[in-house]
Amino acid sequence: MDFTETERIRDLKLRATRFLDEFVIPAEPVYAQQKTEIGPWETPPVMAELKKAARDRGLWNLFLPGERGAGLTNLEYAHVAEITGRSPWIMPEALNCSAPDTGNMEILAHFATPPVQKRWLQPLLDGEIRSVYSMTEPLVASSDANNIDTLITEDADGLRINGRKWWSSGAMSPACKVAVVMGRSNPDGEHHRTHSMVVVPLDTPGVNVLRSTSVFGYSDSGHGGHAEILYDDVRVPRENLLGELHGGFAIAQARLGPGRIHHAMRLVGMAERAFDLMCSRAHERTPFGRPLAEQGVFQDWVAEARIRIETTRLLVLKTAWLMDTVGNRGAAIEISGIKVAAPRMATWVIDHAIQAHGGGGVSQDFPLAELYAQARMLRIADGPDEVHKMSLARRELRRFA
Amino acid sequence: MDFTETERIRDLKLRATRFLDEFVIPAEPVYAQQKTEIGPWETPPVMAELKKAARDRGLWNLFLPGERGAGLTNLEYAHVAEITGRSPWIMPEALNCSAPDTGNMEILAHFATPPVQKRWLQPLLDGEIRSVYSMTEPLVASSDANNIDTLITEDADGLRINGRKWWSSGAMSPACKVAVVMGRSNPDGEHHRTHSMVVVPLDTPGVNVLRSTSVFGYSDSGHGGHAEILYDDVRVPRENLLGELHGGFAIAQARLGPGRIHHAMRLVGMAERAFDLMCSRAHERTPFGRPLAEQGVFQDWVAEARIRIETTRLLVLKTAWLMDTVGNRGAAIEISGIKVAAPRMATWVIDHAIQAHGGGGVSQDFPLAELYAQARMLRIADGPDEVHKMSLARRELRRFA
Amino acid sequence: MDFTETERIRDLKLRATRFLDEFVIPAEPVYAQQKTEIGPWETPPVMAELKKAARDRGLWNLFLPGERGAGLTNLEYAHVAEITGRSPWIMPEALNCSAPDTGNMEILAHFATPPVQKRWLQPLLDGEIRSVYSMTEPLVASSDANNIDTLITEDADGLRINGRKWWSSGAMSPACKVAVVMGRSNPDGEHHRTHSMVVVPLDTPGVNVLRSTSVFGYSDSGHGGHAEILYDDVRVPRENLLGELHGGFAIAQARLGPGRIHHAMRLVGMAERAFDLMCSRAHERTPFGRPLAEQGVFQDWVAEARIRIETTRLLVLKTAWLMDTVGNRGAAIEISGIKVAAPRMATWVIDHAIQAHGGGGVSQDFPLAELYAQARMLRIADGPDEVHKMSLARRELRRFA
Amino acid sequence: MDFTETERIRDLKLRATRFLDEFVIPAEPVYAQQKTEIGPWETPPVMAELKKAARDRGLWNLFLPGERGAGLTNLEYAHVAEITGRSPWIMPEALNCSAPDTGNMEILAHFATPPVQKRWLQPLLDGEIRSVYSMTEPLVASSDANNIDTLITEDADGLRINGRKWWSSGAMSPACKVAVVMGRSNPDGEHHRTHSMVVVPLDTPGVNVLRSTSVFGYSDSGHGGHAEILYDDVRVPRENLLGELHGGFAIAQARLGPGRIHHAMRLVGMAERAFDLMCSRAHERTPFGRPLAEQGVFQDWVAEARIRIETTRLLVLKTAWLMDTVGNRGAAIEISGIKVAAPRMATWVIDHAIQAHGGGGVSQDFPLAELYAQARMLRIADGPDEVHKMSLARRELRRFA
Repeated sequence: MDFTETERIRDLKLRATRFLDEFVIPAEPVYAQQKTEIGPWETPPVMAELKKAARDRGLWNLFLPGERGAGLTNLEYAHVAEITGRSPWIMPEALNCSAPDTGNMEILAHFATPPVQKRWLQPLLDGEIRSVYSMTEPLVASSDANNIDTLITEDADGLRINGRKWWSSGAMSPACKVAVVMGRSNPDGEHHRTHSMVVVPLDTPGVNVLRSTSVFGYSDSGHGGHAEILYDDVRVPRENLLGELHGGFAIAQARLGPGRIHHAMRLVGMAERAFDLMCSRAHERTPFGRPLAEQGVFQDWVAEARIRIETTRLLVLKTAWLMDTVGNRGAAIEISGIKVAAPRMATWVIDHAIQAHGGGGVSQDFPLAELYAQARMLRIADGPDEVHKMSLARRELRRFA
Repeated sequence: MDFTETERIRDLKLRATRFLDEFVIPAEPVYAQQKTEIGPWETPPVMAELKKAARDRGLWNLFLPGERGAGLTNLEYAHVAEITGRSPWIMPEALNCSAPDTGNMEILAHFATPPVQKRWLQPLLDGEIRSVYSMTEPLVASSDANNIDTLITEDADGLRINGRKWWSSGAMSPACKVAVVMGRSNPDGEHHRTHSMVVVPLDTPGVNVLRSTSVFGYSDSGHGGHAEILYDDVRVPRENLLGELHGGFAIAQARLGPGRIHHAMRLVGMAERAFDLMCSRAHERTPFGRPLAEQGVFQDWVAEARIRIETTRLLVLKTAWLMDTVGNRGAAIEISGIKVAAPRMATWVIDHAIQAHGGGGVSQDFPLAELYAQARMLRIADGPDEVHKMSLARRELRRFA
Repeated sequence: MDFTETERIRDLKLRATRFLDEFVIPAEPVYAQQKTEIGPWETPPVMAELKKAARDRGLWNLFLPGERGAGLTNLEYAHVAEITGRSPWIMPEALNCSAPDTGNMEILAHFATPPVQKRWLQPLLDGEIRSVYSMTEPLVASSDANNIDTLITEDADGLRINGRKWWSSGAMSPACKVAVVMGRSNPDGEHHRTHSMVVVPLDTPGVNVLRSTSVFGYSDSGHGGHAEILYDDVRVPRENLLGELHGGFAIAQARLGPGRIHHAMRLVGMAERAFDLMCSRAHERTPFGRPLAEQGVFQDWVAEARIRIETTRLLVLKTAWLMDTVGNRGAAIEISGIKVAAPRMATWVIDHAIQAHGGGGVSQDFPLAELYAQARMLRIADGPDEVHKMSLARRELRRFA
Repeated sequence: MDFTETERIRDLKLRATRFLDEFVIPAEPVYAQQKTEIGPWETPPVMAELKKAARDRGLWNLFLPGERGAGLTNLEYAHVAEITGRSPWIMPEALNCSAPDTGNMEILAHFATPPVQKRWLQPLLDGEIRSVYSMTEPLVASSDANNIDTLITEDADGLRINGRKWWSSGAMSPACKVAVVMGRSNPDGEHHRTHSMVVVPLDTPGVNVLRSTSVFGYSDSGHGGHAEILYDDVRVPRENLLGELHGGFAIAQARLGPGRIHHAMRLVGMAERAFDLMCSRAHERTPFGRPLAEQGVFQDWVAEARIRIETTRLLVLKTAWLMDTVGNRGAAIEISGIKVAAPRMATWVIDHAIQAHGGGGVSQDFPLAELYAQARMLRIADGPDEVHKMSLARRELRRFA
């Protein structure tokens, strides 16, 4: 194991932290204010300024390996992702590193045909448009991806899509122009050779964006919400297929590894933000004659929080390092591990920070309640904890069979 | 201990359950729809119909002991409160049994002067107006009520109030007309002889309702939100004092006992609602080849939930019975106990119901996320868990000193 | 629900508590001393004195309903069982109310033929001998009773038993004279019509008591340990069959209900003993300048412990009351519930009492570590938690199918 | 951070693992058998053979940095310590790496006068004798080391020691020849300049080894138990003082850092042993028609265990690396962190392995119950969890003051 903070990592962290402190944190109240002024689904204008500033500072598309992006390893990017998690509604987008665009760009870069790459990947890389990932469905237990029931059929004219999706995050935003859609193309196929993935421009006839679902009362409006979309006999050309026909699972799998590092490290950053708020607050409030910071139960939370944050961060870094060195498959146990460990740690830390803030903690006066909602959602998104634990356990138990 | 379900309790439960099934549950989508149509702080019109129906059926002011109310014991009312918790945004209000009106009516009935009772208690009993309880403050650790810093001074003209409050729930509603305000009147007084409580009409000059704080992303709009109020040199006549000058703590204490039974039993009802949703859903969803209802981890949640709900319910019933037989003081350990146990149980059950619903669980398609926010808030409101545990422990440890 | 502490219950509690304080607690050091002096499996002589004293005071066979015993309801006896749990190695035996004799006496009273009752039930009721229940087996997952593999075959001479059992508690004691053995008699029979139960005198040829298994490091020597027994072609007459041939499951089931009340209430008593020790100790120790009793984290444990003990006690009392009024079947959910809740609560409370005692807590200087081992064992004995949760959940989920 | 598994670490792990598999695991039943044959406090003879084999293979004194030992870094040794934890009663001693000898050798090497080093350090390094660390006292809350009350006074003849200690581990063994004793020498001194540490040969007049305390029911007999020792006017020459007079706290502190790495890594190894046992067993047992390995609740435990083990191991490795690079002080938060995290993780994993083994789990047929007792003890030894959490939290909160 080698998590050495190389010179390169130290430099990246320094630059990202400066950007956070000098641009992002000061922009938070501006962003919040602008959100109340523009329509519900528009992106606050300050975002364009932040994007420009980030790009000027070389903090752009850091998530993307290889020539198209910044060429960082997963381990290197992980450190940046943590810092972006301190302001999770603003900084990832400012750096063009926010989900689901990151995952979509990755699979477009690997699996899309050249015309599709030109049409959709380039503007995404330039932060000019946003995209949506249409996988989860309201009518089936999507925690088991085999259940996905949207139909993709092939005919002479290309591909035809019929089905209903939800949690298509971002699609309420006018800036969101294109979807990656997973559907069943081969009902009787072999295991994991049953589904395909296609690129669907959102202005294609038959694409009906119906409404947005909320996350604990929050609409995630700045990001374009979480749309329910009816794909009603939508037709796209064959070139919009990603990878092979019926090869959707392999693409979904490839997409997941890095995405989990990103989510997990952002959660570490979210937890650190909550930790800072909790510790600062504790010096300012004095219930029962002593500052909260000197009270035993509160100190217990601080110690627990530090232990949980630190152990989780280490596991994510190890996972990133494994992905860099032995690949997704060799890191499978750890990838499942962080998918479970990181949101749980973050919800724990944030929940205790809320409690330490009293009524303020659940309100809009601190980011804590919304951080909680985000972190809690991540115990469900991309598969609930239980599925990842099952998968991890089966892999371990195989060794003893 | 005698929790016998008397004939009277059975009758009450039957009538309340019928009202829930025939009126309240069907009204839920209507209420939700109307909320989207009226301005943010208005009460949905269906509420008036429900109130009338409840009153016609003798389900009115059941919370209030003695002649003014239904004359129920705490134990008897507890059973009703559980049923109202199944639809906590609608049924308590429909029965004129919702916080903070219930607590306010109780203290008005016990401690207000006759003119104040006539002016404010009667319309509250009739469900014509709503009221607010102004205790918590944004600038101090209000978990320790000694910190409350709003100033109440007496002069020849009466009482003068200066201070800032928040979590003054309900005050955003146009129907809300009067506040009960706690403030410091005797800074150098003996322990618990430092604060007073006064009745303040909301249209008094100097009462500035500034904004509402949210609970996670929810505004509790139907109920009139949670207001921040600046009391800026507000003057009320001496007759608006509740009880004795500097006797505010005793009143606050008297208010709390029954309130905790109400909250705790509603939480039991909220948990039962989540339990039902979780169990029903589990028969409908089939991840990985077997219905969720047949999967081990899910069954474990069901068993845990049932054990937690049942044990908590029993503790609340015992507490109610103790209050009826030996009074608040004799029930002090149990009152602290349910303040801690009930919201914790409910958040646990609801959180697992959310997880069992996947994305639907955090969304507006099920009441679960909003139930969670309510239950979580109750680990803070009326004093955070930690304060009640400290108080319970000190009482126990005294026996061994 | 009616848990009224009747005059009769109050009287029982008073007498049992007096016996505890005046006889049992003072006998604890004597018992411990005698154990070091006699051989490993003998009963300390003080037990005979305690038995006599208990019998003289009408505290004898209280567990047994009907004419043969004290005629108490389950609810009435539950209160006594809690008190016996405060000294679980001495008081239950002193009152002739200790497992497995209690369960064995119950089934002998219900299901044995008259000659067997005369030969074995009477001396057990008189506390002259002890008995063993041979169910669990080392070679199969006995948490699923269907796996039990000891063979019981019938021929012209009677019944023949072949198999290996362990956790046959008490059989190491010279006072233990008879076993109740469960075995497979009907391999191809219908569900729950496959096993039989027989009475086997321990001096029957072929009964080989091989060794004792320990619980953590404790041998439970005073009680006769936990024996592994090889039944090697053991023959008993047909009259030794309990109930019907192949009717063993029904008997096992009947045995379990009351047994779970007994165990659960003793666990409540064990937890109360640990609670008392923890609270007393906290006034005597002063780490970091303040008595432990005034430190926040410790107070948190006290409050948690009180809440957990109280809620669990209430659930056990409700279960006892249900068994008295609607029978085992109507109380099935609650019986499973207390089987899970009581040992968990007790291990939690005792574990924290250990922690509050530091090194003393794990040592022989306090009963805490041995109480922990007992309580922990009860998360496994009579079926592990997981089986009971599964059973409870299935029953609940059926309502929603 | 750089946890790179260097060539040297890989080689060490390989050799240690081979020694475990080829010598230690096969010696376990021999050791157990010999323990039943020799008197209670003797070391089983097989240990001498194992020590020789280890020394022959260069697996000797690996814990000790610098020339006297193997010259390993903390990070390098940590990997070995984990492997020794798989057989914690045998392998550490076989490698001359068992507590409290390791810590004693470290402080003798750093702080003893040359004659004391010659007399006591050398035979310890050669594994010829064992030693004891006498710190904890039965009469005070030793979790706060300031409470330590044994008196050390200086006069013309040297040092005089009076006091009572317990948990002086190892002193029941005839092989144990010397104690390191901490006592109060300067009652009115400044903070942390109040205590001294001295070397006391166990055959000095006035040293009374009174009895041994057990851990749950285990006596740790192979290791010489845990002695209560009365130091009754014991006199030693001035040269037996370790370091400066009144400088005991600094020595105790220096001793603790590496010791915590050792304990924590052994706990990781203990947890891995339990994990292996649990997973193997799960393929062999089939309750309710499916192997335990295929049941959801069990799989959940496996995943949880893996996540907890892995995150804890990473934190310990990071701590070791920090100690190697920035020293004890720079690693203070992490040292406290692993003191809390490792025993908690291990007790969790072992407890679930016990549960998966049913009755076998608590018995002598598997090492699980004794592993649990060891791990549980380590939540108390060297200071209870609560003290380390307090210390960690204070350090963190200082940043926000």
